[in-house]
Amino acid sequence: PTTPAPKGLPIMVKSHTSHPLDPLSAAEISVAVATVRAAGATPEVRDGMRFIEVVLVEPDKHVVALADAYFFPPFQPSLLQRTKGRPIIPGKLPPRQARLIVYNRKSNETSVWIVELSEDHAATRGGHHRAKVISSKVVPDVQPPMDAVEYAECEATVKNFPPFREAMKRRGIEDMDLVMVDPWNAGYYSEADAPSRRLSKPLVFCQSESDCPMENGYARPVEGLHILVDMQNMVVLEFEDRRLVPLPPVDPLRNYTRGVTRGGVDRIDVKPLHVIQPEGPSFRVDGHFVEWQKWSFRVGFTPREGLVIYSVSYLDGSRGRRPVAHRLSFVEMVVPYGDPNEPHYRKNAFDAGEDGLGKNAHSLKRGCDCLGYIKYFDAHYNNFTGGVETIENAVCLHEEDHGILWKHQDWRTGLAEVRRSRRLTVSFICTIANYEYGFFWHFYQDGKIEAEVKLTGILSLGALQPGETRKYGTMIAPGLYAPVHQHFFVARMNMAVDCKPGEAHNQVVEVNAKVEGPGKENIHNNAFYAEEELIRSEMEAMRDCNPHAARHWIVRNTRTVNRTGQLTGYKLVPGSNCLPLAGDEAFFLRRGAFVKHNLWVTRYAPDEMYPGGEFPNQNPRVGEGLATWVQQNRSLEEADVVLWYVFGVTHIPRLEDYPVMPVEHIGFMLMPHGFFNCSPAVDVPPNASVLDHKEDGMSTKAISNGLIAKL
Amino acid sequence: PTTPAPKGLPIMVKSHTSHPLDPLSAAEISVAVATVRAAGATPEVRDGMRFIEVVLVEPDKHVVALADAYFFPPFQPSLLQRTKGRPIIPGKLPPRQARLIVYNRKSNETSVWIVELSEDHAATRGGHHRAKVISSKVVPDVQPPMDAVEYAECEATVKNFPPFREAMKRRGIEDMDLVMVDPWNAGYYSEADAPSRRLSKPLVFCQSESDCPMENGYARPVEGLHILVDMQNMVVLEFEDRRLVPLPPVDPLRNYTRGVTRGGVDRIDVKPLHVIQPEGPSFRVDGHFVEWQKWSFRVGFTPREGLVIYSVSYLDGSRGRRPVAHRLSFVEMVVPYGDPNEPHYRKNAFDAGEDGLGKNAHSLKRGCDCLGYIKYFDAHYNNFTGGVETIENAVCLHEEDHGILWKHQDWRTGLAEVRRSRRLTVSFICTIANYEYGFFWHFYQDGKIEAEVKLTGILSLGALQPGETRKYGTMIAPGLYAPVHQHFFVARMNMAVDCKPGEAHNQVVEVNAKVEGPGKENIHNNAFYAEEELIRSEMEAMRDCNPHAARHWIVRNTRTVNRTGQLTGYKLVPGSNCLPLAGDEAFFLRRGAFVKHNLWVTRYAPDEMYPGGEFPNQNPRVGEGLATWVQQNRSLEEADVVLWYVFGVTHIPRLEDYPVMPVEHIGFMLMPHGFFNCSPAVDVPPNASVLDHKEDGMSTKAISNGLIAKL
Ligand SMILES: [Co+2]
Ligand SMILES: [Co+2]
Repeated sequence: PTTPAPKGLPIMVKSHTSHPLDPLSAAEISVAVATVRAAGATPEVRDGMRFIEVVLVEPDKHVVALADAYFFPPFQPSLLQRTKGRPIIPGKLPPRQARLIVYNRKSNETSVWIVELSEDHAATRGGHHRAKVISSKVVPDVQPPMDAVEYAECEATVKNFPPFREAMKRRGIEDMDLVMVDPWNAGYYSEADAPSRRLSKPLVFCQSESDCPMENGYARPVEGLHILVDMQNMVVLEFEDRRLVPLPPVDPLRNYTRGVTRGGVDRIDVKPLHVIQPEGPSFRVDGHFVEWQKWSFRVGFTPREGLVIYSVSYLDGSRGRRPVAHRLSFVEMVVPYGDPNEPHYRKNAFDAGEDGLGKNAHSLKRGCDCLGYIKYFDAHYNNFTGGVETIENAVCLHEEDHGILWKHQDWRTGLAEVRRSRRLTVSFICTIANYEYGFFWHFYQDGKIEAEVKLTGILSLGALQPGETRKYGTMIAPGLYAPVHQHFFVARMNMAVDCKPGEAHNQVVEVNAKVEGPGKENIHNNAFYAEEELIRSEMEAMRDCNPHAARHWIVRNTRTVNRTGQLTGYKLVPGSNCLPLAGDEAFFLRRGAFVKHNLWVTRYAPDEMYPGGEFPNQNPRVGEGLATWVQQNRSLEEADVVLWYVFGVTHIPRLEDYPVMPVEHIGFMLMPHGFFNCSPAVDVPPNASVLDHKEDGMSTKAISNGLIAKL
Repeated sequence: PTTPAPKGLPIMVKSHTSHPLDPLSAAEISVAVATVRAAGATPEVRDGMRFIEVVLVEPDKHVVALADAYFFPPFQPSLLQRTKGRPIIPGKLPPRQARLIVYNRKSNETSVWIVELSEDHAATRGGHHRAKVISSKVVPDVQPPMDAVEYAECEATVKNFPPFREAMKRRGIEDMDLVMVDPWNAGYYSEADAPSRRLSKPLVFCQSESDCPMENGYARPVEGLHILVDMQNMVVLEFEDRRLVPLPPVDPLRNYTRGVTRGGVDRIDVKPLHVIQPEGPSFRVDGHFVEWQKWSFRVGFTPREGLVIYSVSYLDGSRGRRPVAHRLSFVEMVVPYGDPNEPHYRKNAFDAGEDGLGKNAHSLKRGCDCLGYIKYFDAHYNNFTGGVETIENAVCLHEEDHGILWKHQDWRTGLAEVRRSRRLTVSFICTIANYEYGFFWHFYQDGKIEAEVKLTGILSLGALQPGETRKYGTMIAPGLYAPVHQHFFVARMNMAVDCKPGEAHNQVVEVNAKVEGPGKENIHNNAFYAEEELIRSEMEAMRDCNPHAARHWIVRNTRTVNRTGQLTGYKLVPGSNCLPLAGDEAFFLRRGAFVKHNLWVTRYAPDEMYPGGEFPNQNPRVGEGLATWVQQNRSLEEADVVLWYVFGVTHIPRLEDYPVMPVEHIGFMLMPHGFFNCSPAVDVPPNASVLDHKEDGMSTKAISNGLIAKL
């Protein structure tokens, strides 16, 4: 049933409670799980079902456009592509769909299901409602990500395994409550890791006895044990006590809770600092739709990626709401270690694809994780047995002052114009075993978008024999050793520079600064210039950073120009970066070929999401994912483009990274380049506290320390 | 007269009002100028004297140590080197000295004077007091920096020059009040620029008629004029109207004052955001001495460098106050342009040595330039005729919240420890003609020191003929063109890692990440490691960044170890960087050879301060400064070392950089590496607002917008 489009904004019954891009609600997850479970062929199949991932199937872009045009405020009919005749507006959006990854614990079989939900499912608490199974298929030869339940079971299994207890006794440990068994995924290093079995190779640590509520067991790695666990049947398959390395001595500097650090005395001179927004924030939130300054976008969340940002656009005066990107997220990461010895050579965690950034997200706390006026979003996801878990305050949205935005002072008159920068920050933080990653997207008033990863948490440590040293890492404390490693992150950015949904009018240009040769046109030998080169196809689009050439990449609209006649664009400006330091034949590079280049560009395809493949763990196949897709060498001359920016940091551990590593930052920037006709930040008003002199009083009132007179 | 050292802290009459490192007071500048003027041989000499720079002669490090030990709080006798017997403490510090650069406008002669001041001079308003001339010498064949007075005189001279008025008339300009003549230093491009004459080659711009109080004249460059001004005698030496390029049309987007930007409507939705520190700041200031958290340092200021930071040390528990650096500052910068055409090829401003970062510093404003509780320092400097000028609020000192400092959440228990990062920021901002530079030093609780330069202001623009385009830049608006250029900055860091003043026990190690070859020890091909190489001498110390090798440099103490037995160190971690894109034969590289490498290391010598030489303007000599000093190839195996870190950004202008460029950031980091035994940030307490639940109320009270419910 379709309705002819009315003139002006349509008035209609809002028959949809969920926007097509809203993450699945708790009820929808419940219904989807119940539907799939009910569809199991036999009671045994139904019993064996474990739920790895239940996520929204993101609809086609034209559905999103339709929803944004007529079904959800702010109604934006301008987002629809122009058609010859009067558009036909359907009275309803198509139903939402869920995609489920199901692992059958009895048959060791992985299957993918698509389920169609109805509005009822979103609105009511599931229970007896059933949705419709659209498709299901078995995916052979894979192992889906591990679940926290399996980790806990694995730990118990190992701790109850008599030879393990004996090995621990040989190391002087009898109290199994002190022992930590961290199951690490098997990865793929030889045929022995084939996905016909679901495997884990746990690492073992041992807390010392203390009253500390967060006693740092990672500071005492237990070395020399070979343990292989069948995670399907929860049995120890192989166990060997190969090498008796003494536990590192209990280190007085190992802990980090209040009052037990560095001699037990915390600093007492950090005076309070508050961020106060008396009129509330400058953003508006409606459901998952966010508007701030001239930016708007939608917040999403998946168990694998965590935060997803959709439909990023910038309101540009009479040009209206101009799209910049369809979808931004972190889709994979990998952390290869540089020590060739057991167990470190196997440390190559694909933390998104083997584990999940989103489902390991923290529940954030005002004042600790975030300052100022915070809008939190909760995240719902399925647990292993199909129940729904909620991470309260998983995503944080807030504003920050970011120093000076721009300034100029006239040297003749001494008059100055200065503006402060405000940014909108959307973020989440997750823990993967010992490490923490914070993923931040910052939106700026000058049109910039910054992606930032914050690395913190506890180093992955090893123990050494007394007197032993290794060139592959840093001695952190007596007997305690931290191997070198790299952290690589992949940001997937489906761009939409001045493209309405469905328009495929983008291209990517590489820019390199070039030294001009000497000659008649360059008699002073000072000349250089920026050379632009169109990236014509996917095989040309495997690019690496080159700071000396100021190399960057511009995503341009092929049909829209700015006032000087240049194509409008957004450029990707790298931050510090690196490439893998492992040899080309390293096993993790089979699954992780995507780290071999800093930039890849593909033509958008809805099923090309995870650069290391959907199931990187125990993956025996070569070149799955991004490196394979680009072999198609699709044209990029005018396309719906996806940027895959791969950025890494080489981490040579310091003593100062222990016991908890101070945050390291790494990231990159998306910047308008000829997108606007001039600085979009020029219309930011001066800070109100300049106009309102009462404000000045507010800050001077705070001056209570007589010593701090101006000198 | 000396006093034997008492046991414990000496109680003594505080006979010194100025610490040996305090910048010259207004009175001291006055006295020094009067003393030198009085010493002029004839009335004519005295009349011709113009004062380019009057600065403190920084005393030997042992004088500083003595002052810090016994004369100025906090008394730190531990800073003195250990001696065999009981130390002899002089009852007085040696007198302070001033160094003056004097330009004689009648004889075109530059001289350098050293004057000894007494305590009286610091304490009383100069006038009839005279100090003592210690030395004076003529420096042949140089031109010292230009002064603002000369700039103003030059502008008037050109505007009154009839052929110039005719040329402007040919361009349709009769109202000389609209015309801006920006004197640019001549630099050195041929024998015609020799310092036997004091020369300027001004650039001309023309405002349009408007009521705007900061009408942006830089948006209308006047091209095609060749003007050479004798700045000594203020006469136009050469004038040619070479090429009639039409003035760019008056651009509606050129201005940036409130209400006249982009159609005249400023944003109205930036809600106020206040930083409130109800108990005051966490820092203490006594004179120019600053203590914050465990950091302490002294604030200095010179007309050339602006902010100088002395005696940086970190209070490390029972190890006491551990020195990190003697002196940190920005000593030079240069901005070479890439267009080989007139007038752009001559744009290679050495903004410190030709002009002065400090004397062009802004008077900062609370709420605009800085938020929160601010401690400002004023700066005093001499003007051209010998008077004293004061820049109020030239240096800003304040604290900032800087997000998460560190975090770990235990995946078994869900317990989390998180700390917020507070940083102390010391900064100043200056204008050099059209451009603004902000220089920031950030001190962190985890022992990091960050140097950051913020670039903003107005692009140096040119006009093009209608229809003309150039590959050497970007068309910004109709007829308006911005050439590509680079900004290079030189941070000079006299390090003192665990060195008391006078101890020369540092060395510098280069670290490169290396891929391990395949082989028996690396069967998985995953191995890599960090290779350290001692930089043995100055000629070995010309180094460039290499992000793929994670290259960085560690300054180590040769005699102090951490608990694992490694030498204590601080590492210099580059941010994004580049090298010059000009040809090797470019003229500015004669004076600016220091930009040919990203890092230089020298053995400390008190007179080696300015890498492009003390007087880079019109300098005909080759390889003066840093590139020459290192030819001595002094040993660095155990030394008092100076790091010269040269960092640059290649600026390909965007339309969005106009009319005022949004801030770009560039910088680097000094980070402890085995300096501490563990993270020095581990003892930062949790944010008080977590402990005090009233705080929580404070933030929720601010929530007034009913729409912003949690979803
Ligand atoms: Co790391
Ligand atoms: Co620039």
